Amino acid sequence: MTTPASDTSTRLAEWQQAYADLQSLGLKLDLTRGKPSAEQLDLSDALLALPGAGTVTDENGTDVRNYGGLDGLPQLRRIFAELLDVPVDQLLAGGNSSLTLMHDTLAFAMLFGVPGSPRPWSREEKVRFVCPVPGYDRHFALCEAFGIEMVTVPMTADGPDAEAVAALVADDPTIKGMWVVPTYANPDGSVVSHEVAQRLVSMPTAAPDFRIMWDNAYAVHHLTDVETESAPALALAAEAGNPDRVLLYASTSKITFAGAGVSFLGASPTNVAWYKKHLAAQAIGPDKVNQLRHAQFFGDADGVRAHMRKHRDIIAPKFEAVDTILRERLGAEPGVSWTSPRGGYFVSLDVVPGTASRVVQLAKEAGIALTPAGATFPYGKDPRDANIRLAPTLPPLDEVRVAIDGVATCVLLAAAEKAAA
Amino acid sequence: MTTPASDTSTRLAEWQQAYADLQSLGLKLDLTRGKPSAEQLDLSDALLALPGAGTVTDENGTDVRNYGGLDGLPQLRRIFAELLDVPVDQLLAGGNSSLTLMHDTLAFAMLFGVPGSPRPWSREEKVRFVCPVPGYDRHFALCEAFGIEMVTVPMTADGPDAEAVAALVADDPTIKGMWVVPTYANPDGSVVSHEVAQRLVSMPTAAPDFRIMWDNAYAVHHLTDVETESAPALALAAEAGNPDRVLLYASTSKITFAGAGVSFLGASPTNVAWYKKHLAAQAIGPDKVNQLRHAQFFGDADGVRAHMRKHRDIIAPKFEAVDTILRERLGAEPGVSWTSPRGGYFVSLDVVPGTASRVVQLAKEAGIALTPAGATFPYGKDPRDANIRLAPTLPPLDEVRVAIDGVATCVLLAAAEKAAA
Repeated sequence: MTTPASDTSTRLAEWQQAYADLQSLGLKLDLTRGKPSAEQLDLSDALLALPGAGTVTDENGTDVRNYGGLDGLPQLRRIFAELLDVPVDQLLAGGNSSLTLMHDTLAFAMLFGVPGSPRPWSREEKVRFVCPVPGYDRHFALCEAFGIEMVTVPMTADGPDAEAVAALVADDPTIKGMWVVPTYANPDGSVVSHEVAQRLVSMPTAAPDFRIMWDNAYAVHHLTDVETESAPALALAAEAGNPDRVLLYASTSKITFAGAGVSFLGASPTNVAWYKKHLAAQAIGPDKVNQLRHAQFFGDADGVRAHMRKHRDIIAPKFEAVDTILRERLGAEPGVSWTSPRGGYFVSLDVVPGTASRVVQLAKEAGIALTPAGATFPYGKDPRDANIRLAPTLPPLDEVRVAIDGVATCVLLAAAEKAAA
Repeated sequence: MTTPASDTSTRLAEWQQAYADLQSLGLKLDLTRGKPSAEQLDLSDALLALPGAGTVTDENGTDVRNYGGLDGLPQLRRIFAELLDVPVDQLLAGGNSSLTLMHDTLAFAMLFGVPGSPRPWSREEKVRFVCPVPGYDRHFALCEAFGIEMVTVPMTADGPDAEAVAALVADDPTIKGMWVVPTYANPDGSVVSHEVAQRLVSMPTAAPDFRIMWDNAYAVHHLTDVETESAPALALAAEAGNPDRVLLYASTSKITFAGAGVSFLGASPTNVAWYKKHLAAQAIGPDKVNQLRHAQFFGDADGVRAHMRKHRDIIAPKFEAVDTILRERLGAEPGVSWTSPRGGYFVSLDVVPGTASRVVQLAKEAGIALTPAGATFPYGKDPRDANIRLAPTLPPLDEVRVAIDGVATCVLLAAAEKAAA
């Protein structure tokens, strides 16, 4: 590790030189989005020829090619009911995107209200959502699209700061819901503990129709031998006497094909009936052929678990490389820290406050595309301008190494610029 | 053909006996929905093993397995752009259901308004749609779901009664749209003529944001050598100075697999941009693997046309059987008529006014399931209680014959009951 000069201007000059060297490499690398790599997608290529000629019925003899089956294919739902800890009759299987299920949940809520709503949310003066930060930009984009105001709370090592959430929702009936990525959160990798889950599902809320959008996108996406189990949110909510509070989402987007997987919605019987009522106007049924294809490919829940270990073999070294290089290059840098997640798709990097935008700009000008600074905050505005989301899964390992090393140089230059300013 | 007795009570007794004979057959037949038969679905079974191992990119080298591509796969859109007479950059390819695209169009309109809307439709005092009758029950169900009031106009041999529509929309700004199934309409099989299309796209409307939901579900679903071309609604609307009036929907549901096909939305550049803006919050992209599968299967537009002739070979004899039996059994019956469509999925049967519900009930009690009487009208209420939709595609030909013969008996018994009452 290069020891920075004690003199700030010398240090600045040093990093300017290092940055010039970086630029001279003419890189073209992309760490922007949590996309699986081609090597990961290859793991599921058996799907490309499934279900195969002659296979046209599910286990009940239903022709999967024809219309119908609003709930989704029973044999696929059974596999994910086990993995997601949801009773199978409370789990719907849908199209290729859980984002669509989340979007449509909010659209139905705005137009019609949810069970327990005094009126459609669009008829309220104001609707607000609690957004733990840093968080997932597409969650925030959904709130923005529907005109839902966002109120932030900090993330902790055990998930959202439950006390902060409880304090907000106790007296404010305009707060109708919150986002949670319970396992290996985007971007900080934290896991909601049993205690935090219990607090969130049992806390009193001023809104009678408060909903937790429990986006368990990374439930089975482990990066280590510690295969953390998600808190059983639906069961805990039911025990707490608030069965309708939790809506659980998941998909196979980062299990099989990112663009051609299957999505899931788990909820209380009341919420499932509510969703299906609106779904029945929207669709005659999901793509059951794709669901059958997935059920055949996995076989059972253990098939999914075994498959995820193959993903881990590919991506864990990339996460290790990120951690190793950041430790080496930034370990002694005051005000800089990052996460070492045990699962999921992201590393959350906190740089010297006030420099995140500058780091992203510097990286861009050196040919390294990063998620825009601020993307992990509502409205794209990080009040401390400190957080950067790193997504190391898509590029090959050697490119990840080069990119992260380059990012470290940008972090150090931006910090030196700030110190010298 | 049995000549009815001149005496109504003798006639009633005759048909009561015929009906008793029908009941004694213990039938279990289903003519309720426009579903393709297993034999038709088999025509597309090559899809079950496509795109096949090793095929993971589209013609531009994009990995179809990964996220992205909101517009849908260019090579599939090009095929359907030709068939639907829409410029390819104005045609989006989506998931497995055009019903979903129609639903979501209305949801976006309610929540946000369409281009030209003074405000979201949900903020209007009242929103109304013109519904030509008889029509498609799922269109009516969408209006009901969104609280859109329905105003009926009659169908003619050339599509909706355009003068009646024009008179309604000229002065009433609450009328925001209308439904049209332009080709081989559900259920009456009529085709919108060039002149009617021109009138609909050019008529003055009091609402500045009037939309025609142009559901071209049966564009290529010919039953005879006369392969009628649909009126080029988008081009006509643009020529008339109302480019944004028409939203065109289609799908491969009745071309390949009813539940696992691809849907399409065609519209003006302004409408496409509007739809995509909202779609971008809802999804990262459609199932491109399924779209590639379809593009490979068809090859080109002529591939689709050739494929549809195979459907015709299977279903045209069923429609001929319906027509032959109805002519034989009901040809001389006053007040009874039916359509002989040149395409599509349905025969529209008009029975003696006041007896349609009774016919459906009698058929049910004889083991023949028909679409509920009234289903072809808004709110399920046919004011004349006369129209019944027959859907002959699903059962095998011999069952279609038995079922339609049974229906004819029910029609005659119900008419005799009414005459004797």
